[in-house]
Amino acid sequence: MKNYNDYINYSKKIYDIHMSMSVLNWDMETHMPNNGNKFRAQQLSTLAKIAYELETNFKYGKLLERLLKDKTLNKDQKRNISLSNKQFIKKQKYSAEFIQKQSTLISKAFKDWRTAKEKNDFNLFRKSLSEIVNLRKEESYLLGFNENPYDALLDIYEPNLTVNDVDSIFDNVKDYLVPFINKINNSNHIDDSFFYQYYDQKKQWDFGIDLLKQMGYNFDSGRQDISAHPFSTHFSPEDARITTRIDENNLSDMIWSCIHEGGHALYEQGVLSENYGTPLGNSISLGIHESQSRLWENHVGRSLAYWKHNFNKLQTYFPNKLKNVNYKMFYHACNNIKSSLIRTNADELTYHLHVLIRYEIEKELIEGNTNVDDLPSKWNKLYKKYLNIDVPSDSLGVLQDIHWSHGSFGYFPTYTIGSFYAAQFYAQASKEITNIDIKMESGDTNELLAWLRKKIHIHGQRYDAKDLCKMITGEELNFKYFMNYAKDKYSKIYNLK
Amino acid sequence: MKNYNDYINYSKKIYDIHMSMSVLNWDMETHMPNNGNKFRAQQLSTLAKIAYELETNFKYGKLLERLLKDKTLNKDQKRNISLSNKQFIKKQKYSAEFIQKQSTLISKAFKDWRTAKEKNDFNLFRKSLSEIVNLRKEESYLLGFNENPYDALLDIYEPNLTVNDVDSIFDNVKDYLVPFINKINNSNHIDDSFFYQYYDQKKQWDFGIDLLKQMGYNFDSGRQDISAHPFSTHFSPEDARITTRIDENNLSDMIWSCIHEGGHALYEQGVLSENYGTPLGNSISLGIHESQSRLWENHVGRSLAYWKHNFNKLQTYFPNKLKNVNYKMFYHACNNIKSSLIRTNADELTYHLHVLIRYEIEKELIEGNTNVDDLPSKWNKLYKKYLNIDVPSDSLGVLQDIHWSHGSFGYFPTYTIGSFYAAQFYAQASKEITNIDIKMESGDTNELLAWLRKKIHIHGQRYDAKDLCKMITGEELNFKYFMNYAKDKYSKIYNLK
Repeated sequence: MKNYNDYINYSKKIYDIHMSMSVLNWDMETHMPNNGNKFRAQQLSTLAKIAYELETNFKYGKLLERLLKDKTLNKDQKRNISLSNKQFIKKQKYSAEFIQKQSTLISKAFKDWRTAKEKNDFNLFRKSLSEIVNLRKEESYLLGFNENPYDALLDIYEPNLTVNDVDSIFDNVKDYLVPFINKINNSNHIDDSFFYQYYDQKKQWDFGIDLLKQMGYNFDSGRQDISAHPFSTHFSPEDARITTRIDENNLSDMIWSCIHEGGHALYEQGVLSENYGTPLGNSISLGIHESQSRLWENHVGRSLAYWKHNFNKLQTYFPNKLKNVNYKMFYHACNNIKSSLIRTNADELTYHLHVLIRYEIEKELIEGNTNVDDLPSKWNKLYKKYLNIDVPSDSLGVLQDIHWSHGSFGYFPTYTIGSFYAAQFYAQASKEITNIDIKMESGDTNELLAWLRKKIHIHGQRYDAKDLCKMITGEELNFKYFMNYAKDKYSKIYNLK
Repeated sequence: MKNYNDYINYSKKIYDIHMSMSVLNWDMETHMPNNGNKFRAQQLSTLAKIAYELETNFKYGKLLERLLKDKTLNKDQKRNISLSNKQFIKKQKYSAEFIQKQSTLISKAFKDWRTAKEKNDFNLFRKSLSEIVNLRKEESYLLGFNENPYDALLDIYEPNLTVNDVDSIFDNVKDYLVPFINKINNSNHIDDSFFYQYYDQKKQWDFGIDLLKQMGYNFDSGRQDISAHPFSTHFSPEDARITTRIDENNLSDMIWSCIHEGGHALYEQGVLSENYGTPLGNSISLGIHESQSRLWENHVGRSLAYWKHNFNKLQTYFPNKLKNVNYKMFYHACNNIKSSLIRTNADELTYHLHVLIRYEIEKELIEGNTNVDDLPSKWNKLYKKYLNIDVPSDSLGVLQDIHWSHGSFGYFPTYTIGSFYAAQFYAQASKEITNIDIKMESGDTNELLAWLRKKIHIHGQRYDAKDLCKMITGEELNFKYFMNYAKDKYSKIYNLK
């Protein structure tokens, strides 16, 4: 392997394996029969090992080293080499033993978590979780960091994001968002009870497909299936899939999961095929990915203009259930702000308090300032403090999320970062796209999608998240855009002064 | 790598990659969106190369060589090593250039064939086909053979099968089956017109699922989907899937494709999980595989006893369409013997004349006794000779099958071999299972499945096909079982003396 072309071929080969694993994973979550699990896990593990061997191959490292010094490469080529090299160096830091230990531990922890959640007994998860925390501590030292060990973990999901950044964002949340939510809680109550009637599965499905088509999701380069937990995945920009979940007794579950996952998939469909298999053919970070799903879910999909256009169509699917509802009532109902126990059911404002709680706990665990044994009481105290909610059981409390059992620490903050990026991007789009609301009212999101494509999607990892944000909006991530959006929207909905 | 355990792990690793490819292929044929093709083909090619590198790795060969001499291994272990070594030696014979040339050629030939078939113009396929024939000739010399170059190709799909074997089988076909078919053709006509009414897709699907469940197909270890061409595939004994095709204007298409593919899948579900990834965890050959699908499709699924049990259920799905039909009429209709143009639509007797024609052409092509240019006229002459049919166009004639465009030569005979094995196995099962027909009449195929499991499925590749046949039935493959079955069945149906 000598030149840039060799690098491209090698990088594509690695990527092909990862994409194959994504197909196996997609199948596992959507269609695989019950008994398929055991061998599927083994097949995935084999592919993962092969990919890892290629990713950490000494000759590949040498090639990257050589290409780092190659003056003939253009800017994009240099960017690819630089990012691949960063990845290579990172992967090199893990020993085979660490990888093995991690894989065994996670598989055990996942089982323990599931049992613990089923039996509502945190003790059954305590030991595994404690081992995972220790593993992540070990990892943070192995990867290295400047100030806080948790920085090393944040960097895995959101490159260059630090505890300083996240602290300052959540300081804003505490200073501005929390009082605003309190103000809402003290005002009038929104009736969203019509969501909780019987809504036929097939009709819900069809309406979801309508919404996805309207967004510009290309069904020739993707498809939707049903799975226990909605997710998006991709095997190339020309095959970016989503899943949804349909609860026949709750209409809202399907609608905003479709739009959310559709937003993720639009990002993947917008990455350039010609860059497949290289960093420039990859999304930037979890935060930027989440900015796309949240932008569509909240700024588009929970807007008055959107439902002014789409409510009639929804009503034709369910004329009886929705006969006493109009688009304004619908808009209010889908923006009902209310403290709740479960993160994934939370509204777009209180959601960030759920993330804040997890962030505080994770950081303290990794810093060594909290013990796993204290988690349930700590969790419950924080839910009382930030959401004014009493947690009735660990199943509905500290055991509710899958993330820790998967070994994911540093992941949660990207949900909030992504939402705040979404607000900042949407504010900018509203400036640059004339009459965006009027277009939305006629169901026309073409210009918005074109804007996202041009500003974000086509670049892949050409720019770091922070630089991209500056290029698009003229400044780094700034909480005020989210706060302005929230104030503007909810002051009207709740008639606040 | 030093011991048998290393071999097992290495062999499993190779198998995991092939099974992953099967998942990707399954998805491609069932669910993949239109635009997914390009990158999917690339991903499959990457996995194929990785598998090939492992399969031909020098150190793996050394390990096999060492284990061949290992006296401590038991019989099954020796069998695994011996078969893996045979595979290794075979794979070693191909150069990287050959593999590359083959892959390029097949991808071109497939496109040319598709266009040629669409445009009904054999000329568009002539050049590619000629190159493929040359490639297969080259391959036969590269693999080596004793008497006939075509032997080397037969051996790929049906180990140890030779031109001598196949010639002698088709001599029997010509001597006994052809005159018998002529006798049938000169007798009364069967009315099967009720098959060709409108049959609702959903109801057909449900009935197919009923039949599969009754056969003992385990839906916890498999599933059925829709695809353009029905097929079966597997990713482990615990995930063996099938597909079907539903023609709303032809009920028979779905029924016997379900039973046929179900028969294949029962074989895969019956292989032992503990042997996954080794020859003992693999099916023996295409012929034995086909024996399982044909046994269920024809000996079970086209029997009087089977429809005596199942016709009522079918009638409850389609009471109006079938109100003037009874189970005997149904049994006659699904055993209508009639020369036809298209192999895949042929009845269970004339089917073998379609195979005979392809076999004669393939053999002469590989021996160099026929030129690709002469194929259309040769094809048409043989259809006149054996089936007394005038071929109206190349699309419905020499271009009808996909196989040659895929580079498959030596594959067709396994269809016939498989059918004749099926007859011989079923004759033996009927001897060993008391009152098999009465059991069938009550829908009970459990004992038959248990017999097939014990005699065939659980062994994987423990025995060669020929030895297995001798062990089960006391003799090698013998055409008389098929002929007896045919005579007995069709003499009654057609009232022949």
